Amino acid sequence: MSVCKKIKVMQKIKLAIAGYGNVGRGVEYAISQNDDMELVAIFTRRNPIEIIPVTSGVKVYKFEEVEKHIPSIDVMMLCGGSATDLPEQTPYLSTLFNCVDSFDTHARIPEYFAAVDDNAKKSKKVSIISTGWDPGLFSLLRVLGMSCIPNGCDYTFWGKGVSQGHSDVIRRIKGVKFAVQYTIPVEDAMAEVRKGNNPKLTIRQKHIRECFVVVEQDADFQYIEQTIKTMPHYFCDYDTFVHFISEKEFNTKHIQMPHGGFTFRTGTTGSDNIHKQCMEFSLQLGSNPEFTANVMVAYARAAHRLYLKGEVGAKTVLDIPVGMLVQKTMEELRKSVL
Amino acid sequence: MSVCKKIKVMQKIKLAIAGYGNVGRGVEYAISQNDDMELVAIFTRRNPIEIIPVTSGVKVYKFEEVEKHIPSIDVMMLCGGSATDLPEQTPYLSTLFNCVDSFDTHARIPEYFAAVDDNAKKSKKVSIISTGWDPGLFSLLRVLGMSCIPNGCDYTFWGKGVSQGHSDVIRRIKGVKFAVQYTIPVEDAMAEVRKGNNPKLTIRQKHIRECFVVVEQDADFQYIEQTIKTMPHYFCDYDTFVHFISEKEFNTKHIQMPHGGFTFRTGTTGSDNIHKQCMEFSLQLGSNPEFTANVMVAYARAAHRLYLKGEVGAKTVLDIPVGMLVQKTMEELRKSVL
Repeated sequence: MSVCKKIKVMQKIKLAIAGYGNVGRGVEYAISQNDDMELVAIFTRRNPIEIIPVTSGVKVYKFEEVEKHIPSIDVMMLCGGSATDLPEQTPYLSTLFNCVDSFDTHARIPEYFAAVDDNAKKSKKVSIISTGWDPGLFSLLRVLGMSCIPNGCDYTFWGKGVSQGHSDVIRRIKGVKFAVQYTIPVEDAMAEVRKGNNPKLTIRQKHIRECFVVVEQDADFQYIEQTIKTMPHYFCDYDTFVHFISEKEFNTKHIQMPHGGFTFRTGTTGSDNIHKQCMEFSLQLGSNPEFTANVMVAYARAAHRLYLKGEVGAKTVLDIPVGMLVQKTMEELRKSVL
Repeated sequence: MSVCKKIKVMQKIKLAIAGYGNVGRGVEYAISQNDDMELVAIFTRRNPIEIIPVTSGVKVYKFEEVEKHIPSIDVMMLCGGSATDLPEQTPYLSTLFNCVDSFDTHARIPEYFAAVDDNAKKSKKVSIISTGWDPGLFSLLRVLGMSCIPNGCDYTFWGKGVSQGHSDVIRRIKGVKFAVQYTIPVEDAMAEVRKGNNPKLTIRQKHIRECFVVVEQDADFQYIEQTIKTMPHYFCDYDTFVHFISEKEFNTKHIQMPHGGFTFRTGTTGSDNIHKQCMEFSLQLGSNPEFTANVMVAYARAAHRLYLKGEVGAKTVLDIPVGMLVQKTMEELRKSVL
């Protein structure tokens, strides 16, 4: 028995990180919480000596050296951004490794999937794209909702949480030193959804936007507030609140990256659709990048298992049995969790 | 194009129902909400002429005749009870058909799975056991929680909803004519869980039990209330509230079968586990049997697809990719839902 156990512990899944930002470091923490995994390398496009990993003994390499490390890596964790990094890196690394990413540009998923699928099939590897929570867990729950309440409606609300995109556009306004924008779901709208009233909701009725702004000296407060509130696409369709705060308050209260959200499916069943049915899934995340990283690491376990089973090509969360995400065997899960 | 579409509509999945109680009728309603499926037969151990199906033209047969109908049925929906019906029927019917059930005796799942698996492997069919919502969707979410928040705790709360078992034991007390028992989760306990405080909760702190009782003439109210509140296992460990009501009020307000519940996973991530993460899934069901039936029908679609792919044996919700539960193809889902 103890020999078996030792062997099991020794055969850890070997993960590597490509891109060491907030998600990359989150993956490093996540691996430390899963004792069937180990981090074997970090790849970066920065100067490797700039990176100080949390895990003792892990080497940091230049991204260009990745091909030298093929034999020692079971799954590559792609932690770059969806705008420019991942569309280049995931198709390329799929020619070499099993891969997991959290590509989140919903509209571009079909073409992205096709590019990754082609390469992963040629290399006989598995690449799971668009993990994380939206797309990712929220997608999984939306499909589960559609399947179990076919006569129904979907609602997704995001927040309370930091939107990087919205924070960035505020930072670009003249006179702004630091800024953070929180997306907040409107409680009354969610209450209507929970009642099963299937409300039609406008953009403004679903979310509000709250901004905390630190200004440069001599900045024009009124100009900044007006520029934010009237900004097309980002703010003008929302009730937007702007608070000017000190740099000290900003650094005390607004440097975390919380997020979360809610996805609902509501509908009816039975004779004359008499019975209301409501499914709700929500996340309250103290750290958005660390949770995204945790989801990626769970799917890395599945990628490795699918590869060992001989599967190839691109996959999404919708293709993967949930039982493959945890260390326990299906037999153990049937006994203790089902 | 239109020819293709017609052919697709014509190849509906042919379902049959074994056992026509509340869940069986729920399956019938559920099939009517899924236009890629049709109900082809109902089997009963009662006299078939006693059964009046909702669907026009559907024939009702004696259970014993089931073997004559093998060629015309893609998936058999087992709608009997978990105590005595399913342990007999699912292993037997797995020798003949692809099957779906909602076996819910958690402790007996391993042996039950083994019996069904043996038979389904011999017949080269697929049987998905223990669908529904607990076990079923809640199991899926518990495993998803464990996978994405490995350093964390699980909590499941049930209700507000009717417990048949608890209602039954009240009905057996001398002087009771009708009774219904609602299991209600304690809001304060759930609030503590949502805060990420990982509280240790006793049985009493998690749920209260509320009973509505109609008595026979000359019944002893005090005896009934005391018997309920002190009943071992069922009530004595809970704060229990007993209301005596009229038969009229009972028939107006307490003949529905609502249920639901909450499953949580809460934990921490990051450096020194500084960030709290919380995942919550909940159901508010106007009709428990109809929702259970809806889940079964979604898994019937998966059973049929797995069978067509050549898979065999017993499966649970943990083995099935969520994307297989809906009519849309994976390609359509990636484009519109992911």
